[in-house]
Amino acid sequence: MDVTEDQLLATIHRVLSGAGPEVIVGPGDDAAVVRSGSGELVMTTDAMVEGVHFRTDLTTPRDLGYKAIAVNVSDVAAMGASPRFAVCALTLSSAIDAAWVVELAGGMRECCEEFALSLVGGNLSAGGEVSIVVTVTGEVVPGRAVRRNGARPGDRLVVTGSLGGSAAGLRVASQRSWSDDERDAIRRFMRPTPRVGEAGVLASHGVTSMIDVSDGLALDLSRLCRASGTGARIELARIPRHPAATPAEALAGGEDYELLATLPDLETFEDARSELRNAFGVSLGDIGAIIDEGLVAVDENGTERPLMTEGANAGWDHFR
Amino acid sequence: MDVTEDQLLATIHRVLSGAGPEVIVGPGDDAAVVRSGSGELVMTTDAMVEGVHFRTDLTTPRDLGYKAIAVNVSDVAAMGASPRFAVCALTLSSAIDAAWVVELAGGMRECCEEFALSLVGGNLSAGGEVSIVVTVTGEVVPGRAVRRNGARPGDRLVVTGSLGGSAAGLRVASQRSWSDDERDAIRRFMRPTPRVGEAGVLASHGVTSMIDVSDGLALDLSRLCRASGTGARIELARIPRHPAATPAEALAGGEDYELLATLPDLETFEDARSELRNAFGVSLGDIGAIIDEGLVAVDENGTERPLMTEGANAGWDHFR
Repeated sequence: MDVTEDQLLATIHRVLSGAGPEVIVGPGDDAAVVRSGSGELVMTTDAMVEGVHFRTDLTTPRDLGYKAIAVNVSDVAAMGASPRFAVCALTLSSAIDAAWVVELAGGMRECCEEFALSLVGGNLSAGGEVSIVVTVTGEVVPGRAVRRNGARPGDRLVVTGSLGGSAAGLRVASQRSWSDDERDAIRRFMRPTPRVGEAGVLASHGVTSMIDVSDGLALDLSRLCRASGTGARIELARIPRHPAATPAEALAGGEDYELLATLPDLETFEDARSELRNAFGVSLGDIGAIIDEGLVAVDENGTERPLMTEGANAGWDHFR
Repeated sequence: MDVTEDQLLATIHRVLSGAGPEVIVGPGDDAAVVRSGSGELVMTTDAMVEGVHFRTDLTTPRDLGYKAIAVNVSDVAAMGASPRFAVCALTLSSAIDAAWVVELAGGMRECCEEFALSLVGGNLSAGGEVSIVVTVTGEVVPGRAVRRNGARPGDRLVVTGSLGGSAAGLRVASQRSWSDDERDAIRRFMRPTPRVGEAGVLASHGVTSMIDVSDGLALDLSRLCRASGTGARIELARIPRHPAATPAEALAGGEDYELLATLPDLETFEDARSELRNAFGVSLGDIGAIIDEGLVAVDENGTERPLMTEGANAGWDHFR
């Protein structure tokens, strides 16, 4: 492909820009929001493709099924919405047997039960490689969906939990033995935890924008800033890093499914942090601030440099 | 795969059978129906996989985009529902360029505009083969979704339009020249017409069950009968056949996306037929009746034989 993922998406969105007034949030956010009957419906879809997102010899089908649901639940949560229903289109290669599929379905059911949604339908196809496409719908209080585009200069930039664990887990998965931290990192890669309740708490504290960190902090922050028409200044030393992760993995490793959000002031941040710690035992880190323009990283010595979102140190672009 | 598609689906449904009271129609029908807010939401998903459902050298991306939406719209229509919103998960191989994707999106938009739904979101992934997974939601008057399981002995078995055209189109597509009928058949394969308005008319006339013919008349009829706990007796000479199709293609060729439905009596059939002809110029054929058990085909001489749903003459199973 001769363009980046974001460039291609922008082009597709232009071709599709014919949506009517019933579309509240169209393409380009974590999930779409549409008017449905008297309420608002949230919709998102995500693919897991063999050889790109997983290898059948490294991942159990049960973990894979869990993760296929979880990554979509994360997108619904990042809109401040509650997941309700899922459908799955499954493409199977000739290398797959029925027992593998039953385990995959079992993992999907586990995740659905944990986050109180129902898998209500699906489709089976044959193909040359395994692909699992899940679509999840959710519900949100009308007018209360949290978008990427509401960040304002002066807002605090916050992130839940820690970053880089999933990338570290992928890196160490093929080792023969692991430290406890590495085991935890592998678990984060294999079976990420979508931040559903946490997103609800952040929404109740008045976050101005929110996104889930699926493609790396640097790339997802750049998307939030572009949508909001702002810049951001992050302090590298304050990025909460998983103990098994390198600084680069914390900055640019994908698939952590933590929440990146903006809050109007430090007092709100302290309130939200307390509630997240008390209710879920999950930390909330203040990693910087929204500024007028530019993406700036500040290192331990106070030196500022541009935050790279493309290139070797940047987030996960599916076409690079 | 060591089992048929229907066997594998049945196994998956057992693993997943944990749905709550908010699920009105779960896995196993054309689409799921769930309670959503004060209404009912219809959801369906379908995949088109390179090498299985299409070849990029034989299909234009614009037709492919149109069809990817249309096959899902057909499933929503077969529930007696109105399509509203779509999301698409697109997996692209390295052989695909941006212009191809823009054409694909253009075809999706064409179909969405024709059937008044909005494509509101999506996802891009890289992969070894192209795959297009569309999920469509729809709305239905609460309690009025038409399922597969309502056929009763004595019901007339009816089908819209003609069958076998799509299979014939695929068969003749690689010829150097075509008759007018063959051109029409190719168009039916490349750009099928979902029967949305027609399904609404049939629903208003009190169809007791309905299914779209996506995998061939024989196989889809067997699914309707299994869901309803009945049999069926069809008269082979009365199956409306596309002029380019063989009898076998009309009986077992997939991807026609016509509607197969049951109506309580001949008078209702005549009324529905008149309205379909007047409103849409679409024919409705009476091809037989629902019976207590067994699937029976009657040939031109009145000889009865079992209708084969497995084997060389049967419908399209994705794992055969």
